[in-house]
Amino acid sequence: MIFLMRNVQLSIMKKLLLIFLLSPVIVSAQTMSDDSLFIHKIAVNILSSDASYNNLHYLTKNIGGRLSGSPQMYLAEQWGAGAMKDAGAENVILQECMIPHWIRGGEDKAFVIYKDENEGQQKYSLNILALGNSVGTGPKGVFAPIVRVNNFDELEASKDELAGKIVFYNVPFDDTLINTFAAYGKNVTYRGVGASRAAKYGAVAVLIRSMTNTPGNYPHTGSLRYLDSIKKIPAAAMGLEDVKKLNSLFQKNIPVSGALYTNGQMLADTVAHNIIGVLKGSDYPEQIITIGGHLDSWDPAEGANDDGTGVVQTIELLRAFRALGYQPKHTIHFVLFANEENGTRGGKKYADEAKQHNEQHIFALESDAGGFTPRGFSFDMNNAVGWQKINSWKPLFSPYYGDRFEMGEAGADIGYLKALQTPQAGLNPDSQRYFDIHHAATDVFENVNIREMKLGAINMAALIYLVDKYGLN
Amino acid sequence: MIFLMRNVQLSIMKKLLLIFLLSPVIVSAQTMSDDSLFIHKIAVNILSSDASYNNLHYLTKNIGGRLSGSPQMYLAEQWGAGAMKDAGAENVILQECMIPHWIRGGEDKAFVIYKDENEGQQKYSLNILALGNSVGTGPKGVFAPIVRVNNFDELEASKDELAGKIVFYNVPFDDTLINTFAAYGKNVTYRGVGASRAAKYGAVAVLIRSMTNTPGNYPHTGSLRYLDSIKKIPAAAMGLEDVKKLNSLFQKNIPVSGALYTNGQMLADTVAHNIIGVLKGSDYPEQIITIGGHLDSWDPAEGANDDGTGVVQTIELLRAFRALGYQPKHTIHFVLFANEENGTRGGKKYADEAKQHNEQHIFALESDAGGFTPRGFSFDMNNAVGWQKINSWKPLFSPYYGDRFEMGEAGADIGYLKALQTPQAGLNPDSQRYFDIHHAATDVFENVNIREMKLGAINMAALIYLVDKYGLN
Repeated sequence: MIFLMRNVQLSIMKKLLLIFLLSPVIVSAQTMSDDSLFIHKIAVNILSSDASYNNLHYLTKNIGGRLSGSPQMYLAEQWGAGAMKDAGAENVILQECMIPHWIRGGEDKAFVIYKDENEGQQKYSLNILALGNSVGTGPKGVFAPIVRVNNFDELEASKDELAGKIVFYNVPFDDTLINTFAAYGKNVTYRGVGASRAAKYGAVAVLIRSMTNTPGNYPHTGSLRYLDSIKKIPAAAMGLEDVKKLNSLFQKNIPVSGALYTNGQMLADTVAHNIIGVLKGSDYPEQIITIGGHLDSWDPAEGANDDGTGVVQTIELLRAFRALGYQPKHTIHFVLFANEENGTRGGKKYADEAKQHNEQHIFALESDAGGFTPRGFSFDMNNAVGWQKINSWKPLFSPYYGDRFEMGEAGADIGYLKALQTPQAGLNPDSQRYFDIHHAATDVFENVNIREMKLGAINMAALIYLVDKYGLN
Repeated sequence: MIFLMRNVQLSIMKKLLLIFLLSPVIVSAQTMSDDSLFIHKIAVNILSSDASYNNLHYLTKNIGGRLSGSPQMYLAEQWGAGAMKDAGAENVILQECMIPHWIRGGEDKAFVIYKDENEGQQKYSLNILALGNSVGTGPKGVFAPIVRVNNFDELEASKDELAGKIVFYNVPFDDTLINTFAAYGKNVTYRGVGASRAAKYGAVAVLIRSMTNTPGNYPHTGSLRYLDSIKKIPAAAMGLEDVKKLNSLFQKNIPVSGALYTNGQMLADTVAHNIIGVLKGSDYPEQIITIGGHLDSWDPAEGANDDGTGVVQTIELLRAFRALGYQPKHTIHFVLFANEENGTRGGKKYADEAKQHNEQHIFALESDAGGFTPRGFSFDMNNAVGWQKINSWKPLFSPYYGDRFEMGEAGADIGYLKALQTPQAGLNPDSQRYFDIHHAATDVFENVNIREMKLGAINMAALIYLVDKYGLN
């Protein structure tokens, strides 16, 4: 497009009108206007600052993948504590917790072997990544015929044929679901418990189709969970090009075998820390608002969108509040959670400590769905007054595109605070690109658009500012 | 993030509730439900089809940049007519129009020359792109001192010093504006008329800072417009790394000269075509709804987001309507406009012909703001009843994230239909990434997320379906 000046002025006019005409409850037009001015200041501050760009660049490029228990995780903790201080934390707490310590242990390899009618025995390699928490095959590997199933029903139907076999879960992402988390939600169970369900019938390993529909051949890892008293067998994710190739053999009814070499090992639990930056509240210092993302990430990439952006947004809120001289009424905890990916022990520890010390947690906000352009928030709360209040704030979020408020789960780490009845929210970025890069080698700095990440931070800051100012009761 | 199933089911429930509770006017719950079912069918069809992916891939990778009058433009016309037929057009019209024929004429080059205190004379090259429609320097180039101005006020203030100089417009994008089109709208005048305004005072060439704030050094081209009776001087855009480097010399008050070599030439007008796919209306065949994007693009890239995605979305609407057996009441024109970038002669021709033949154009929709995830539409109309109707449809768009309806300009090509009082709309994708790639070598297929582009098409199809079914009066 050329010169066209799009709806910008008109749109601002309309928003101001909306703010005055539509806000249904509680706050006066004057207050609303003060709020919109302060939120605008936050926006200008965040959009003008290089801090979040530099932080994300350092975390992804200088530290990189930060698997729980890895040397990079400890580097990230050290960096996170420093970044909190630089951003203006009055106090930084390193809250110790024990975490599972899974290591990949080496390069994951796999081969497909079959007999071609004309060309004889064929062998080609697969691009795989062992699933987090999975046991390895050992150096000798696993060699066995591959059985393909398209869902658990088919698994059950062929249970008598699975002993000694490698089970290949060929479950495509459902592209027709608009929110890609819905497609993920449908399929992730195959990654989570597919290994145990196949092992129950004697399978010796599983291969899963990666949780994505993005063209290319990157495998997407992620954690599995072995079911009690079932033998632990190796499991790995395949890239989609390899899935296609393998499926073409099955379509021709060619018997196929697989050779799998993975080195995963679950070591003894080890020590990690939630990094907690604190701003003390002026009026209700004993009442705590939590903001957080998780510091750990999968190893094949830089953990940029999962969850480098959540980490950086959390620190950015602290920096912007301090830069603007904002004095919160409530105490705010800016938390970089440990071990979200394969244990959520950091989130659990944070809530356990809160409970043990009878802390009052009045609100929590998590960002762990990528650094993409924001749509709004997902709220998990049972407080009609609070929900009505929050909805009355919508016009304040509209200029920053974060005014889509829905009920739903808020986040895996802050979810543990539900034991304390803490109302909570998760940032909802646009979901279309998340599973292009989720847990894959492509989750790198270059696949974050910094303005989009900043817009997310602006909406988060606005929500925290309003909850701090007006409360939810 | 790990297993978490985000607000998906709840969100669907809420949307259904919204549809029943909030739709304020006109349509009954039953009709609304039929409409939402049909729009869902459209969505599933578009999300399940590879057609738009394949079309965009062909247009960008097999044809590429499609400057008005270039061989690629004619290839694109031929392809477009075929694609319309393949998509199910009952009739394809090639509407001839005369277009300006600017050629780049060769490689654009520039050098900065200055004297370093210690190292003596220094020379380094700039990464530039001549602006569209600009005259070239000729093979001897232009060599002159560079004068830097930060805005037109500074230009006017230094008008006596500009004779024989190269003017460097150093006007940064305003990052604090949320909608990036607002930043573009503020700065594009320097690209548009900066050359003439400098030439008025005797300048011999201009360099402009590219219309972006994206890190990197890609120059972003775009058209200029010479003002009548002022000497035409060469003009080119610079990448931001080079801008930074050049600014560092100015900050040290080092006198700087530039050498510029560009080869742009405006040839005689030539022939192009609007490609119009037609679906005849059952009830009101004489009343026309137009949907369109523009087929031409700048040359340094593939014209993927500008406007390959608009082209492909237009064809996709036709394909999906036909695939679902949808019989429109009104005649629909699916239009690939010629020459938007440096003349908008295609849009003008289309409206001129409509006027001349007394055609009734009841609605027009354009997509020319990139293939990014949709936010909604910008409406340009003076029809309160229609506007109220459109707003009553919002709940139908909400599941597809396109429910942000604003008043504003709709599009450069369909804008000419305002002479016929045609109500119109432009698709508004999220704007954050557009000026990363706009008119730069990075506007390539890889920078389109196909799901985002399809979501745009789904919202466009929903709007056309509703306007066709209910009208705007």
